[in-house]
Amino acid sequence: MNHSVIRFILGYVVGFMGLFLMLPVLVAFIYHEPVWFDYAIVAFPCLIIGIANSYFKPKNHSFYLKDGFFCTGASWVVLSVIGALPLYITGEIPHYIDALFESVSGFTTTGASIVDNVERLTHASLFWRSFTHLVGGMGVLVFLLTVIPLAGGDGSQFNLMKAESPGPSVGKLVPKLRNTAQMLYLIYLGLTALEIILLLLAGMTPFEAINTGIATAGTGGFGIYANSIAAFNVKCQWIVAIFMFIFGVNFNFYYCIMFHHVKEAFKMEEVKMYTFLTLTSIGIITFNILGSSAGLFDALTKAAFQVTSIQSSTGFSTADFAVWPQTSRCVLVLLMFIGACAGSTGGGIKVSRFVLMGKAVHKELISYIHPRSVRKTILDGKPVTHDTIRSNNVFFGTFMLTFFVSVFILSFENLDFSTIFTAVIATMSNIGPGMSLVGPAANFAFFSDVSKLVLIFDMLAGRLELFPILMLFHPVIWKDLFSKRRCKELKNAGKILKK
Amino acid sequence: MNHSVIRFILGYVVGFMGLFLMLPVLVAFIYHEPVWFDYAIVAFPCLIIGIANSYFKPKNHSFYLKDGFFCTGASWVVLSVIGALPLYITGEIPHYIDALFESVSGFTTTGASIVDNVERLTHASLFWRSFTHLVGGMGVLVFLLTVIPLAGGDGSQFNLMKAESPGPSVGKLVPKLRNTAQMLYLIYLGLTALEIILLLLAGMTPFEAINTGIATAGTGGFGIYANSIAAFNVKCQWIVAIFMFIFGVNFNFYYCIMFHHVKEAFKMEEVKMYTFLTLTSIGIITFNILGSSAGLFDALTKAAFQVTSIQSSTGFSTADFAVWPQTSRCVLVLLMFIGACAGSTGGGIKVSRFVLMGKAVHKELISYIHPRSVRKTILDGKPVTHDTIRSNNVFFGTFMLTFFVSVFILSFENLDFSTIFTAVIATMSNIGPGMSLVGPAANFAFFSDVSKLVLIFDMLAGRLELFPILMLFHPVIWKDLFSKRRCKELKNAGKILKK
Repeated sequence: MNHSVIRFILGYVVGFMGLFLMLPVLVAFIYHEPVWFDYAIVAFPCLIIGIANSYFKPKNHSFYLKDGFFCTGASWVVLSVIGALPLYITGEIPHYIDALFESVSGFTTTGASIVDNVERLTHASLFWRSFTHLVGGMGVLVFLLTVIPLAGGDGSQFNLMKAESPGPSVGKLVPKLRNTAQMLYLIYLGLTALEIILLLLAGMTPFEAINTGIATAGTGGFGIYANSIAAFNVKCQWIVAIFMFIFGVNFNFYYCIMFHHVKEAFKMEEVKMYTFLTLTSIGIITFNILGSSAGLFDALTKAAFQVTSIQSSTGFSTADFAVWPQTSRCVLVLLMFIGACAGSTGGGIKVSRFVLMGKAVHKELISYIHPRSVRKTILDGKPVTHDTIRSNNVFFGTFMLTFFVSVFILSFENLDFSTIFTAVIATMSNIGPGMSLVGPAANFAFFSDVSKLVLIFDMLAGRLELFPILMLFHPVIWKDLFSKRRCKELKNAGKILKK
Repeated sequence: MNHSVIRFILGYVVGFMGLFLMLPVLVAFIYHEPVWFDYAIVAFPCLIIGIANSYFKPKNHSFYLKDGFFCTGASWVVLSVIGALPLYITGEIPHYIDALFESVSGFTTTGASIVDNVERLTHASLFWRSFTHLVGGMGVLVFLLTVIPLAGGDGSQFNLMKAESPGPSVGKLVPKLRNTAQMLYLIYLGLTALEIILLLLAGMTPFEAINTGIATAGTGGFGIYANSIAAFNVKCQWIVAIFMFIFGVNFNFYYCIMFHHVKEAFKMEEVKMYTFLTLTSIGIITFNILGSSAGLFDALTKAAFQVTSIQSSTGFSTADFAVWPQTSRCVLVLLMFIGACAGSTGGGIKVSRFVLMGKAVHKELISYIHPRSVRKTILDGKPVTHDTIRSNNVFFGTFMLTFFVSVFILSFENLDFSTIFTAVIATMSNIGPGMSLVGPAANFAFFSDVSKLVLIFDMLAGRLELFPILMLFHPVIWKDLFSKRRCKELKNAGKILKK
């Protein structure tokens, strides 16, 4: 593996964490909170490391897929560990594993919390929690690509982006990868700004609007009030619901719209299926909770909010859906597995994976009826490569195996099945609240440390789509990391490239 | 499709049903029960149809994979519909959907019952319920292959056997397929006889021993007492437990042992993994229920019985495991998904599918670390074909999709999540009892007719491993069935073959 590039990138990640941590320092100053000091003493060493690191540029930028995967996995571990420090140092979360859980939950845009009453937190910490969603939503390495002139060519950079971007395949929007990353961030921040403005107009205070806006953008779900979005008026709830839906759509869709490829945009099968699932689920749930609501509009508002919240994997709530009738709960649990579109900020298995799996099942069925027919799988009018389909199938298996192992370890808590089952899926799909004891009115504080570590693993594995995190546990990668021969090879390759 | 062969095979299935139904007539005579008449009036028309059918031999025996799949799906529907008739006619199950549920549950070796108290049933009906397990365990078409000289060559017959035999791939034990089928039935009936003898020696009455023996052989699980196997002494419980384990092992293992390929037998990865899972689960559960048991031996007996019962998908019980601690219940639910070995009479996804999936996941992980390496997947020392791996991956996806759709439809019952979830997996994996309201102390009677039909579908889909049943719902197969051109083609092919 290319140690120097990995060191270089991780150094930048630490440096940017230093920069990011200056924001809560600013917030603390505005609200005259003494916790500014706690954030600052984490921020400064990070900044120094970041600046020092930038002086030692790697000689060889060549970067393989495994370097990309390792780097991504390691970056997210570094992010989470540093992000937890201020929460722990301020004493607001006195147990470090809890702080780590909160930090991982933030960066992975899960939104599951161990804080019993968020209203007791300082403004600085509330903002920091929301801000981690913004960083994690689009990915920190994709962000790095937009700002650092990382040499090594598109191929190397692509290996980095592939590991962090959600979905079965990564497409470049424009020929140069760096421009693609910039374009994605432009759409991302533009939409976030639009939501914040609308929320301000609908009556939120600036602090509320900014926090809610960035937590929606990352499809995170950390709220600043104990009753989440139920604290705001119906107008705000609809704005948040619509933006949750928007951030769950594949960003390629917006790119196509922006550059007048409207026809292409509306041909995207994943977006059509995502919309279909959302509308159908809203219909079923509205009808199902009508009896316990104050009229049709109230039921529709609650249903629309909760469906977009769960399907986009945000996890905000306006009602305690854990006490809704079984059909509604069942629809929500199924949506937890399905999740949002690939190439969005949302989590879950992703709609496109289900679309591909549906096509694979149909193809298998046809292969029994007409064994000699050779059919290509077509998605959005283009044939899907054999490798993508294989990876997609294996992804389902890996997801299920990880899911089952996690459920098994959590079963030692001796809680009811529904709690364990939904705690695991709510973290693996980066949603936040589950059902029963981990419902929207509850939190994850009661789990043991072992269970919390499992859930932390699940959140990271879910956000990075399993393989970059699973790889960190594979002996081959560690053997490669410490193998001297490989280092020498790469050094020589660097020299050759220079010549 | 080849209509005449399909008609010929289905006719034989009906005929043999007539023969099988003579057995409960005999039992009714022995116990002086008037229900002999109800069984006889179903048996005779079947026998007549069967005999009449045998006079109209098909001209052309060529048989494609789709014919095999269609024929298998259709045969099982025919079996179930006829098998339900006597239960309905005797008035013991007064609602036909309920009788169909019981019949499907029997043939698919599920063992889920809608009868509130089995002890109120006649001996004839109790025997018939158990006997359906024996027929369904090894498969009725495999049985046909052993007795009818079905021409058309090994290729055609193989297409029939492939659809009915469980597991990712079907191997011939001996060069001729008919001999393979005979060999399988020989092992099957031999082991059953051995179990019945041992149960007699351990103190059961002949009626008890025969019923329990054949229900174990098919890994079915219909008991003849309300408290299942808890009605018998500990010696009997251990015999049943050991035979449940034995019938969950791949039958190739016994074939290898019989013909002195002992080394090969003990190399089978699936059998090793199956044994490992069984022993580990017994260990965990023994430890987990020790507090609520009368000593270590009692805990071990209960744990061993329940683990072998669930993993082999039999579904007998000696304790109400639905009230065990969460860890034990969780282990049992995971075992419900995993199931027994391929090529056994057990259900579930099958251990070998998980072994193959584990290998696929590992290969995927390695492909990110060393993208250019080409590795073959090896099972039992032999390379696995690409097609088998693809089918295996798609199977997992299809299983999950079917599972989720079923859970969704059942959610309209407004029952707790655990009941719905385990009711679906207990039927899809052909186990029988689940947790909560469908636990071993309960039954499936309270479900609505729609839910019962869904569960009937799940039992059939689970037993035939999805595709033969899903195919019955695919429009292409019905178009093929009524296409005249295809019929003509086959007629001509028949003439050419004759020349």
